[in-house]
Amino acid sequence: MLSKNTVKFIKTLHQKKYRNLEQKFFVEGEKSVLELLNSDFEVELLLVTERFFEQHQKQLNHLRAELLIVTQKQLESVGQFQSNDSALAVAKMKSNQYFENTQEDLVIALDDVRDPGNLGTIIRIADWYGIKHLLFSSQTAEFYNPKVIQASMGSFTRVKFYYGDLKEIFKKWDCPIYGAYLGGSNIHQLNKPKPGILLMGNESNGISEELAGFVTNKITIPGFGSAESLNVAIATAILCDNFKRLAGE
Amino acid sequence: MLSKNTVKFIKTLHQKKYRNLEQKFFVEGEKSVLELLNSDFEVELLLVTERFFEQHQKQLNHLRAELLIVTQKQLESVGQFQSNDSALAVAKMKSNQYFENTQEDLVIALDDVRDPGNLGTIIRIADWYGIKHLLFSSQTAEFYNPKVIQASMGSFTRVKFYYGDLKEIFKKWDCPIYGAYLGGSNIHQLNKPKPGILLMGNESNGISEELAGFVTNKITIPGFGSAESLNVAIATAILCDNFKRLAGE
Repeated sequence: MLSKNTVKFIKTLHQKKYRNLEQKFFVEGEKSVLELLNSDFEVELLLVTERFFEQHQKQLNHLRAELLIVTQKQLESVGQFQSNDSALAVAKMKSNQYFENTQEDLVIALDDVRDPGNLGTIIRIADWYGIKHLLFSSQTAEFYNPKVIQASMGSFTRVKFYYGDLKEIFKKWDCPIYGAYLGGSNIHQLNKPKPGILLMGNESNGISEELAGFVTNKITIPGFGSAESLNVAIATAILCDNFKRLAGE
Repeated sequence: MLSKNTVKFIKTLHQKKYRNLEQKFFVEGEKSVLELLNSDFEVELLLVTERFFEQHQKQLNHLRAELLIVTQKQLESVGQFQSNDSALAVAKMKSNQYFENTQEDLVIALDDVRDPGNLGTIIRIADWYGIKHLLFSSQTAEFYNPKVIQASMGSFTRVKFYYGDLKEIFKKWDCPIYGAYLGGSNIHQLNKPKPGILLMGNESNGISEELAGFVTNKITIPGFGSAESLNVAIATAILCDNFKRLAGE
C-alpha cells in the first residue's frame, strides 16, 4: 500500500534541495523506468500499475527494491507526468565522479546550459552518437531534474558526466577544444578533426569569456537563411553528426 | 488604456477555437514582436511597455495598428510568458495558401507532427537553412499556436506553409520524396540528392502507412550508441544540414 509518508517523500524529490539532501531522484514512464531497471543505478522504490507488473514480471524478478502496486491515479498524483499508466521509480544518485580524457572520442562540455529540456535532449543526442562522456559547468541544469530525465528518454542511464570547473579541466587536458560560435570555421569543411572537447555555450550568452580563451577551433554551422541562431540542443546534434561523419565512422 | 474588453479579447486568442473564429493570433516578446513588425503580417493591436516604446520608436512610426502603452504586469496578465517586459502584438492570420513545387530547394513536409514546440523548432531550422516552403498534414500542430510562435523565434514570419492532404500533393508533384526512417540509407553517404520533399513523421508513430508508399528514398541518420531514436526536430535539423552540405552550398 502506498502510505502517506511515501507520497510525501516522493513529492519532496520534485525539489532540487531535497534531491540533494537525500541524494535520490525519481524516474517516470514506461521506457525510462525500464531503462533504469536495466542500468547500474540502484533503485530503491518502484511503484507500478498492475498492467506494468504483469507485462514486465521477468525484469522485476531481480529487483532488490521495495515494490508497490498502485493505480494510474496514484502514479499521476506523486509524479509530474500528466498521464502515467506504467511506473515511477526512486533511485540513488551517483556521486559526481571525475574522469580522465579518453582521447578516443568526442567529449561534450556544456558551459551553463540552463534549460533542463535542452540538457536532457543533449544527453539523448550524445547517446545516439555513442558519446559517453559529458562535462558540465556548475551552473548547467541539474542532471537529476525530472525534466532532464524525461527529455533524455532513458539515455541518462548510459552517459558518464562530471560537474566541475571547466577552466581547470581544460587546463589539464591536452586536446583540441572545439567551440561552437556564430563566426567560426564551417563545420562542413573541417579536415579530419582529432577527438577532443565539443564546447557548447549558454542559451542566451554563448560561451563565456572565461572559457573562450581555451577554444582551439572555433566552429560554425553554416546558415543559408535568416534565422539568427539555432537552439543549443539542435546545434549540438548537427555538430556531433558532422564530427562522426568526418571521423569516417 | 487597456480596456477589460481588450484583455478579454486577447485571452480568447489563447484558444485555437477563437483564433480560427477571429482569424487572428498573438505574438509575445521583444524579438518575435520586432520580427513581426518587420514582416508582411498585418498587425492590428500592439501592447508595449514604455521601455520598448522608447527603444523602438523608429519602427513604431510606420505602425498602422492600435498602439497601447502598458505595464509589464499587464503584458504578463494577457499573454502566456511568465516574464515579458517588452511587447505583445495581435496580427491577422494569413490564408492557407497552396504553392507549386519550386523544384529548386528542399520542401519540408510534416506528417502529423503534434508537439507545438517541435513544429516551432522545425520552422526555425527551416529558416536557418533557407528552406522557404513547408507542407503540413492537417493533424500537424497549428502554426499559430503561441508555443509554435515562441519556439520559432521570429522565423514564423519568413516561411510559406500549406496545410492539406499530403497524399494529394505527393501525387501531383514530380520530385524525390525523402522519408526519414530508422532503417534507410545512411544520409552521410547519399549521392548528390536532387531537390525534393523531406518527409518527417509523427513523434510516436513515424511516417504513416498512407504516405509511406510515396517515399522514393528512405534515409536514416547513422547512430553509434544506444539511443533508440532522435526527437523529430533534432532529426530534421541533421537531415537539412546534410542536404545542404551534399548540395554543395
